[in-house]
Amino acid sequence: MTTKGRSVSKPEGKLAVLLPGLGAVSTTLIAGVEMIKQGKGAPVGSLTQMGTARLGKRTEGRTVKIQDLVPLTNLNDVVFGAWDIISENAAQVIERSDVLSKEHQALVRPAMEKIVPKKGVHNPEFVRRIAANHVKDTKTHRESIEALRQDIRDFKKELGAKRAVMIVTSSVETYTGSPAATHSLAALEKALDANDSSINPTMLYAYAAIKEGVPFANATPNASVDTPALQELARQENVPVAGRDLKSGQTMMKTVIAPALKARMLGLQGWFSTNILGNRDGEVLDDPQAFKAKEVTKSGVLDTILQPELYPELYGKVSHKVSIHYYPPRGDAKEGWDNIDIFGWLNYPMQLKINFLCRDSILAAPLVLDIALFMDLAKRLEWKGIQEWMSFYFKSPMALEGLQVEHDLFIQTTKLKNTLRAIAGEEPITHLGLDYYGDDLPL
Amino acid sequence: MTTKGRSVSKPEGKLAVLLPGLGAVSTTLIAGVEMIKQGKGAPVGSLTQMGTARLGKRTEGRTVKIQDLVPLTNLNDVVFGAWDIISENAAQVIERSDVLSKEHQALVRPAMEKIVPKKGVHNPEFVRRIAANHVKDTKTHRESIEALRQDIRDFKKELGAKRAVMIVTSSVETYTGSPAATHSLAALEKALDANDSSINPTMLYAYAAIKEGVPFANATPNASVDTPALQELARQENVPVAGRDLKSGQTMMKTVIAPALKARMLGLQGWFSTNILGNRDGEVLDDPQAFKAKEVTKSGVLDTILQPELYPELYGKVSHKVSIHYYPPRGDAKEGWDNIDIFGWLNYPMQLKINFLCRDSILAAPLVLDIALFMDLAKRLEWKGIQEWMSFYFKSPMALEGLQVEHDLFIQTTKLKNTLRAIAGEEPITHLGLDYYGDDLPL
Amino acid sequence: MTTKGRSVSKPEGKLAVLLPGLGAVSTTLIAGVEMIKQGKGAPVGSLTQMGTARLGKRTEGRTVKIQDLVPLTNLNDVVFGAWDIISENAAQVIERSDVLSKEHQALVRPAMEKIVPKKGVHNPEFVRRIAANHVKDTKTHRESIEALRQDIRDFKKELGAKRAVMIVTSSVETYTGSPAATHSLAALEKALDANDSSINPTMLYAYAAIKEGVPFANATPNASVDTPALQELARQENVPVAGRDLKSGQTMMKTVIAPALKARMLGLQGWFSTNILGNRDGEVLDDPQAFKAKEVTKSGVLDTILQPELYPELYGKVSHKVSIHYYPPRGDAKEGWDNIDIFGWLNYPMQLKINFLCRDSILAAPLVLDIALFMDLAKRLEWKGIQEWMSFYFKSPMALEGLQVEHDLFIQTTKLKNTLRAIAGEEPITHLGLDYYGDDLPL
Amino acid sequence: MTTKGRSVSKPEGKLAVLLPGLGAVSTTLIAGVEMIKQGKGAPVGSLTQMGTARLGKRTEGRTVKIQDLVPLTNLNDVVFGAWDIISENAAQVIERSDVLSKEHQALVRPAMEKIVPKKGVHNPEFVRRIAANHVKDTKTHRESIEALRQDIRDFKKELGAKRAVMIVTSSVETYTGSPAATHSLAALEKALDANDSSINPTMLYAYAAIKEGVPFANATPNASVDTPALQELARQENVPVAGRDLKSGQTMMKTVIAPALKARMLGLQGWFSTNILGNRDGEVLDDPQAFKAKEVTKSGVLDTILQPELYPELYGKVSHKVSIHYYPPRGDAKEGWDNIDIFGWLNYPMQLKINFLCRDSILAAPLVLDIALFMDLAKRLEWKGIQEWMSFYFKSPMALEGLQVEHDLFIQTTKLKNTLRAIAGEEPITHLGLDYYGDDLPL
Ligand SMILES: NC(=O)c1ccc[n+]([C@@H]2O[C@H](COP(=O)([O-])OP(=O)(O)OC[C@H]3O[C@@H](n4cnc5c(N)ncnc54)[C@H](O)[C@@H]3O)[C@@H](O)[C@H]2O)c1
Ligand SMILES: NC(=O)c1ccc[n+]([C@@H]2O[C@H](COP(=O)([O-])OP(=O)(O)OC[C@H]3O[C@@H](n4cnc5c(N)ncnc54)[C@H](O)[C@@H]3O)[C@@H](O)[C@H]2O)c1
Ligand SMILES: NC(=O)c1ccc[n+]([C@@H]2O[C@H](COP(=O)([O-])OP(=O)(O)OC[C@H]3O[C@@H](n4cnc5c(N)ncnc54)[C@H](O)[C@@H]3O)[C@@H](O)[C@H]2O)c1
Ligand SMILES: NC(=O)c1ccc[n+]([C@@H]2O[C@H](COP(=O)([O-])OP(=O)(O)OC[C@H]3O[C@@H](n4cnc5c(N)ncnc54)[C@H](O)[C@@H]3O)[C@@H](O)[C@H]2O)c1
Ligand code: NA
Ligand code: NA
Repeated sequence: MTTKGRSVSKPEGKLAVLLPGLGAVSTTLIAGVEMIKQGKGAPVGSLTQMGTARLGKRTEGRTVKIQDLVPLTNLNDVVFGAWDIISENAAQVIERSDVLSKEHQALVRPAMEKIVPKKGVHNPEFVRRIAANHVKDTKTHRESIEALRQDIRDFKKELGAKRAVMIVTSSVETYTGSPAATHSLAALEKALDANDSSINPTMLYAYAAIKEGVPFANATPNASVDTPALQELARQENVPVAGRDLKSGQTMMKTVIAPALKARMLGLQGWFSTNILGNRDGEVLDDPQAFKAKEVTKSGVLDTILQPELYPELYGKVSHKVSIHYYPPRGDAKEGWDNIDIFGWLNYPMQLKINFLCRDSILAAPLVLDIALFMDLAKRLEWKGIQEWMSFYFKSPMALEGLQVEHDLFIQTTKLKNTLRAIAGEEPITHLGLDYYGDDLPL
Repeated sequence: MTTKGRSVSKPEGKLAVLLPGLGAVSTTLIAGVEMIKQGKGAPVGSLTQMGTARLGKRTEGRTVKIQDLVPLTNLNDVVFGAWDIISENAAQVIERSDVLSKEHQALVRPAMEKIVPKKGVHNPEFVRRIAANHVKDTKTHRESIEALRQDIRDFKKELGAKRAVMIVTSSVETYTGSPAATHSLAALEKALDANDSSINPTMLYAYAAIKEGVPFANATPNASVDTPALQELARQENVPVAGRDLKSGQTMMKTVIAPALKARMLGLQGWFSTNILGNRDGEVLDDPQAFKAKEVTKSGVLDTILQPELYPELYGKVSHKVSIHYYPPRGDAKEGWDNIDIFGWLNYPMQLKINFLCRDSILAAPLVLDIALFMDLAKRLEWKGIQEWMSFYFKSPMALEGLQVEHDLFIQTTKLKNTLRAIAGEEPITHLGLDYYGDDLPL
Repeated sequence: MTTKGRSVSKPEGKLAVLLPGLGAVSTTLIAGVEMIKQGKGAPVGSLTQMGTARLGKRTEGRTVKIQDLVPLTNLNDVVFGAWDIISENAAQVIERSDVLSKEHQALVRPAMEKIVPKKGVHNPEFVRRIAANHVKDTKTHRESIEALRQDIRDFKKELGAKRAVMIVTSSVETYTGSPAATHSLAALEKALDANDSSINPTMLYAYAAIKEGVPFANATPNASVDTPALQELARQENVPVAGRDLKSGQTMMKTVIAPALKARMLGLQGWFSTNILGNRDGEVLDDPQAFKAKEVTKSGVLDTILQPELYPELYGKVSHKVSIHYYPPRGDAKEGWDNIDIFGWLNYPMQLKINFLCRDSILAAPLVLDIALFMDLAKRLEWKGIQEWMSFYFKSPMALEGLQVEHDLFIQTTKLKNTLRAIAGEEPITHLGLDYYGDDLPL
Repeated sequence: MTTKGRSVSKPEGKLAVLLPGLGAVSTTLIAGVEMIKQGKGAPVGSLTQMGTARLGKRTEGRTVKIQDLVPLTNLNDVVFGAWDIISENAAQVIERSDVLSKEHQALVRPAMEKIVPKKGVHNPEFVRRIAANHVKDTKTHRESIEALRQDIRDFKKELGAKRAVMIVTSSVETYTGSPAATHSLAALEKALDANDSSINPTMLYAYAAIKEGVPFANATPNASVDTPALQELARQENVPVAGRDLKSGQTMMKTVIAPALKARMLGLQGWFSTNILGNRDGEVLDDPQAFKAKEVTKSGVLDTILQPELYPELYGKVSHKVSIHYYPPRGDAKEGWDNIDIFGWLNYPMQLKINFLCRDSILAAPLVLDIALFMDLAKRLEWKGIQEWMSFYFKSPMALEGLQVEHDLFIQTTKLKNTLRAIAGEEPITHLGLDYYGDDLPL
């Protein structure tokens, strides 16, 4: 592939995808990649594997696969490593979490038995509903970081990988707000030295990855690279970072419907979202302190999309409620119900109701895969710090200070695809298209 | 306003919005404009009245109202004329159609009593469920066209208007497919001479408007300017045209959800849409031949959005069913129910269900207003023929032969807004935004 | 009317319906009765006003109105009195609570302005979210009771009523469980003397009514006559009592669906119920302690209907979750969403989802009316203590100790109607009907 | 078992359940019985296998299984025979219809391969969408009947059965209304002689069964024993008969919700029901003439439940619409959506929406089993003609001329269970229960 745009090194050798948290999401990803390699499954839901981009003018008919537009690691070169605080191997996790059919489980069992997690860095203050049995016996934050950095180096060796990325897929941690220790890199270094109790495990994984030069992304609602401290570190170490919390089901739909309402200038009076789920993630979220973290990432999306400051009559008084309920019959088949109270011409009220019978890990797995491959691309582009073009994947995406965070799924898509076009030296697409009409629509 | 872009004449004097069909949609529009002028209502749902556009870079903070970006007719200069085949005045129609509250009806009654339709051009073969009592007694197509052209000139005089636009809001006509008489202007002229029975009334309204140099748009599923014959005429007469069938409720949502599925590379197995509505439009649609016309405009949207030719594994075998049922308890408060069968990673199935308790005419009225104001703008820009940037408003929009029609609501929005930016001499927005990040994300 | 059954005194003179709590439910009742008297409204939802009972064999064709089967007070003889802790009159409450249309409000305003509450007995420990401004200044429980008894006597005089019933329609109180003070009449008397803080206001209203010989029913989830203490008092004073918590919306539907599942021997894995409501009752329920009381009455219904002890394979492991959310856009138009996970033949899973867009006070008002008229009938029948046949009306109905409480709406209906038949000396209906078939189906 | 009531012969030896139509419903039944015999499945949904009846007073605590109350054939003595117009054996049908999981299919395959249908009596005028390949080559109705009677005798011999019942589970036939040939037995005999083309195949199966003294029930919407002609024959031949069309999903729920509305005196403005299904039954129903038959059985239920003649203000003007759509993605997992427009106190409107994600054959199979066992019981009771107590199972049940047909699921349940109690010499249950309260509630 010749890139007219940014010159970028080829993805040679193996890429190690390192996953703190070997749970439903990560094993669904690993098993899926195994099935795809066996020719027994399709990477549905993955932009890197199935997506395309239209290039040039509509009449040129140039549409290419994304993996032909920019140099991405081939699935055959992707290998996995994981940490967990429970000692189960991936085959055991898969059996317990009941995401895949019995038939599919059988197909991947031999490969999955080989995925055994390294011991995790754990703090029971942050994850309270899990009986950990596979925890590093490090005494201090610094010791934990060192152990993790050693693990990263070991993983690369063991897996024969040239490059690595880390994507956190561990349990939701207790919400901490924004502790002082994270306000600057200096404050963080001090807090690490002091073994400050406000530092959550996810932060330690992130610190270790960045120090090792490994691109880092956060699929969970836990605090990490969205802090000034770690952003500073990432830029200093030339490492790209992204997060947080995958945007997979109900929130994804919310960032689709809200832009549509705004496009049509329909007003919004209230939005009530409830969720029932019965997997281990749901069990952890049953702890109100853990739910708090999720509530925060779930609640923020409407305001930045709807811009109440621009449209006070339409979006100035929105009742937005989000609730999650642990409901075991549902298992991993999470279900969302949204009631949306809108209004139109002369303020007449209308209602929109959405019932999403989804599957948590099935939606999440391909997103983690895409993030891994794109973060590796970013690293090879020598990009660092916040990767705003990754907003597409996150409930609570990041942007440079002073820039509005973007939640609208369609703007995110455009941003992502136009970024890929730019990397490849292609023109961005504006959907203007007056030129096709010649003299009929002169400018 | 100075436009750096295309120089465009100011909207001086009154604009006559001429509406064949004085039914629920058109009276809701007229009554609403009256209430807004009285300061008693808000033009919710209207992009021309409430919308904004961001200009330049995000950090510039330049967001302007659309009506400040391009020169649009002020609501105070908008006046209305209508034709109908029933003699009721607008006040009577409003009372019967029960869209507005009693309170609102009282507010506008005096003004509405003055809106009395001129006699319509009618053909009972095309609209079978309405007992017409207010029909021109013209004998031939040519006579009907002449009568309509005279009406247009009379309306302008009576209403004191300098400019006019025509938006068809009449009943759904029997589906005719694509009769030979519409394949070229020459064929049409001959068919008009021969009083050809395949020529539907909407076609005659369109012919008359174009000949008078009046911009024409079609809010109904009836055939008119989407035929080669009338497109030829429009270009010849320097008249902009747009259509067909307003995209207001269930189909609007469909063009929101389908792009989201595609953005996420989620597969689609089937989409079942049903609709219940109880207004006069529903009664007319109870005639299977009329429903056919609606079914055609409603069914086409998925394919062009999903591009099954590009994504055969994802969208190659979609069961798409659309049904409409006349159900009197609903009145104008149409309700849609959609069941969407999707699949994700490794083909695991999921379901999305959407229940839209909407209001037909409340959704439609502001769209008609926007179309009227934008078509007048197009005329002042000296634009002619198909206005692709109006796709945003239609279930079955038009594009130049050889170009794919665009159904994706978000691409349509981008196309519309970037067109407005281009008219105003502003840069299109690409959402790329790498430049904000300086050395972090070099290209 | 000749009653072959129990001889019962005629409902002579006026009946005073006394309502602690002049809120949405009680004003909707009072306004509705006023409209009905004016001939401007129909008592839809009321069994006493619209219901019928079939008598004898199907072939006799004897179906009578319930009000012709047993002697009930005529609506024209019903008068109202109320207490509240806020001083607003009924017209003000109606305007604020926005249950009735503007038009209906205007019709009843003059009559409603005359309904002014007497000062209520209040304890801010039990109702925390209301700013009371109209509270008796009694110092002790005994003083409060005396004041209420005096009020009852005054109401009868002021309203010219011969008979009275009291139905509590006040706000939800903080949940207290089953305090020792309510375990026997003796304990209660002592607690009243000692001004025991576990005695909630509703208990005092009930005590006062019973002492005055006034039938008492409880439309709220607050503790009162479902305690051994007040049941003892009621039997001692020959007063009929009933409660608690009206069964109006989601729970009513639950007691319809669950019996259907059991009739068909379909298994149940889980039932998730969520509610959104935005009226003052919802605001009070936003206090977790108040919600607790409601949760208790809402959660109990499934077990007694499904009898898991009889059907362990079908109903032995049901996840039952109930949640209520205060969501202002909804106002009084409460909305319930239920997801029901069932299973059939060979344990194959299925789902049933119910979305109820109801109106809280519209559903509740006719129930309060029926309860008032039936409780007055019970009194005239010289019945006392628990009125099990009233189970039809309550979320948490009462039965003699040792008897299973009945929640199944259809058994409750049969029980109620067969009781009315028995009072009137008619045969109960068994739906057996083999006799019609003579020799074809011999026994 | 000693029955104090009607003496009834023991169910000795095997019972042959003979099924015209070896499709999804019948194979799900046969496979399920096989799994239950293997101890690998539970007969969920079957009253005969899992149901109980309470006997005597509530305080007696006497609740018995229905199979201990009346003498029913044990599942181990149930054997199956079938006819079809396609030659596939049950294993092939099961594989194609995709009702059971792969795992369950494997468990029963050997047994299912032995279930091979005899050739069916076919008429392409009545079933148009099936490519028949296994059809009797009889020339006349009389020949067909003789061949079927011979088959019945052969089945009994081959299966070693003492007794038989026939339950029709074949495809929906074209709707014929009520042809003259079915108005009396004499007319039917003549029509059979004349080979009258209005006689549908289901009628011939029924005629043959009755002539062989075999109890007959009809699980389909096809005309048969609900005609005067065959009722006469059944009484003459001392054979019990029942039908038609199983009440399994959406209609079952309708007969649950409608009685609840009536119990509460809530008004009904409209009821819109739509169904999507993708199995072969759905494919056949895609033929408008076949759908007509189903529409008729589905539409009748509301009127007899709601009694508009008794309650004109509540139920006098109901818009009831039923639609069915063939939608392949759904397979056997039929889905119903109901929108119910109700009104309450003072006519305020409310809405109830029901979404039933059910499984067609899973719901139907246990009903067919119950019907078979109860019809055999009826025969042993020497009952004949219409079995009104079987109404519980049918969309369009039968009753003696002059008696109202009963659709209310709860009355049907009471009727069924009180009939069983009567057979066993037990008292019917009335839910009156005043006696428990002694002097408190005297009569
Ligand atoms: N659609 C989705 O599934 C989705 C969407 C958005 C975000 N997420 C997030 O992804 C994360 C993973 O979800 P899941 O469903 O796989 O959850 P899971 O509970 O199945 O897996 C989480 C795993 O993390 C492990 N863990 C906990 N703390 C750890 C630590 N300190 N170090 C290492 N391992 C640790 C747990 O033992 C567990 O095995 C959650 O935070 C979830 O909120 C999921
Ligand atoms: N959301 C929406 O309301 C919506 C969306 C898309 C399209 N539409 C279309 O808009 C049109 C109007 O809808 P409506 O609800 O106002 O319908 P309506 O039935 O209330 O009004 C249509 C009017 O057109 C009149 N009419 C019929 N034939 C005519 C003729 N030849 N000349 C003049 N008048 C004629 C009828 O008498 C009637 O008054 C319909 O075609 C409808 O399908 C509406
Ligand atoms: N469908 C229904 O509406 C429904 C169903 C079941 C139960 N309920 C119950 O009925 C009750 C009334 O509901 P609502 O919607 O009318 O509520 P509301 O809040 O409108 O009215 C309650 C009134 O009680 C008054 N109040 C509070 N404490 C009092 C006291 N100690 N003495 C006298 N007045 C007092 C309040 O000031 C208020 O005016 C609530 O307990 C509610 O839970 C309602
Ligand atoms: N919940 C339910 O599944 C349900 C409910 C009510 C009624 N029903 C009715 O039960 C019947 C069976 O449903 P199914 O899902 O099993 O359908 P199916 O299409 O799977 O099976 C019907 C079978 O009947 C056969 N057949 C057609 N005409 C025949 C004839 N003349 N003689 C012998 N066989 C013949 C067909 O070849 C087919 O194998 C249908 O009439 C259906 O409407 C089903
Ligand atoms: Na909730
Ligand atoms: Na339909």
